Amino acid sequence: MTERGLLIVLSGPSGVGKGTVRKAIFDSEDNDFQYSISMTTRKKRIGEVEGVDYYFRSHEEFEELIAAGQMLEYAEYVGNYYGTPLSYVQQTLDEGKDVFLEIEVQGALQVKEKVPDGVFIFLTPPDLTELRSRITGRGTDSIEVIDERMRVAREEIEMMALYDYAVVNDEVPLAVQRIKDIISSEHFRVERVIGKYRKMLEEL
Amino acid sequence: MTERGLLIVLSGPSGVGKGTVRKAIFDSEDNDFQYSISMTTRKKRIGEVEGVDYYFRSHEEFEELIAAGQMLEYAEYVGNYYGTPLSYVQQTLDEGKDVFLEIEVQGALQVKEKVPDGVFIFLTPPDLTELRSRITGRGTDSIEVIDERMRVAREEIEMMALYDYAVVNDEVPLAVQRIKDIISSEHFRVERVIGKYRKMLEEL
Repeated sequence: MTERGLLIVLSGPSGVGKGTVRKAIFDSEDNDFQYSISMTTRKKRIGEVEGVDYYFRSHEEFEELIAAGQMLEYAEYVGNYYGTPLSYVQQTLDEGKDVFLEIEVQGALQVKEKVPDGVFIFLTPPDLTELRSRITGRGTDSIEVIDERMRVAREEIEMMALYDYAVVNDEVPLAVQRIKDIISSEHFRVERVIGKYRKMLEEL
Repeated sequence: MTERGLLIVLSGPSGVGKGTVRKAIFDSEDNDFQYSISMTTRKKRIGEVEGVDYYFRSHEEFEELIAAGQMLEYAEYVGNYYGTPLSYVQQTLDEGKDVFLEIEVQGALQVKEKVPDGVFIFLTPPDLTELRSRITGRGTDSIEVIDERMRVAREEIEMMALYDYAVVNDEVPLAVQRIKDIISSEHFRVERVIGKYRKMLEEL
């Protein structure tokens, strides 16, 4: 019996370094999961390759996939759609392989609705650990500036609450190792393996 | 602010090799957690050291600790008590250090009642993955023998359901690495870290 793969979702505030961490994970030697390539309606740039950088589709094709429920998540950005086609993800998970998505926070929330047993990892900026100094600054900032920073920090923290793990991106190799440990250990979670044993007993 | 340590509980069916795996973890270099020494009423054997092998106590002293709610878990075995004193565990967790317990299944269930946010790891025999052949044998066993094996397997699996992780003890170094990955990644679980951030915001 093939064990179903894990859906791993890496997300976090914009500018936190999600893309850099994802690339470092896929450049490292011992990774054993598939990267899901995004689909977009924006024009292909010079050097970009269909099926490598993106799946490039027309506006109409993309909207047909949305209407057919064939997008795991999507968003519109500066007039173009970006998203994750469902079919590849489903098929790869069914084959027992793990799928890795690196997406924006809004997309991650859509995925969580559809695949609640995914592994949701929130990458946090290194200075979230120094929240106080980041918010109060050097003590010369106006109340308005401090209030705005408080609002942003509060939003980030409440976003984090929707994830399974929070990983600090203080140094890329450290963040990569933490994420690998998480993926490894998630395979041993009882709720993921016990069904296999129960089914085996039933079938005897 | 000191983050509270994790309580890690390693358990599993008797004979699965819990002690061997625990020793290998503590003999390895990069472990950073405290081993909780058990308390017992049995006589000290030659070579055993108080506070190293066990805390040796009288029957009366042990029962006083039980009555005072000072045992995290305990069991009686061949007329003697064995258990984990609460005070050391509490104090060590409060200092922000992880505590590692290697105990029998009945004890683990007592700990789960008292410390539901502990990390509960069930060590499984390697042949649980070959459940079918283990139960049906070579095809020459009686129905009664097969039924008994089914009952034992069912019990083990339902025991496993009460844990967070199931780790196969196929090779000790592999089991050790899996357990280390689990402990590392549990530190990044959102429910364990988010309180720290929320508290920081409140205190500003």
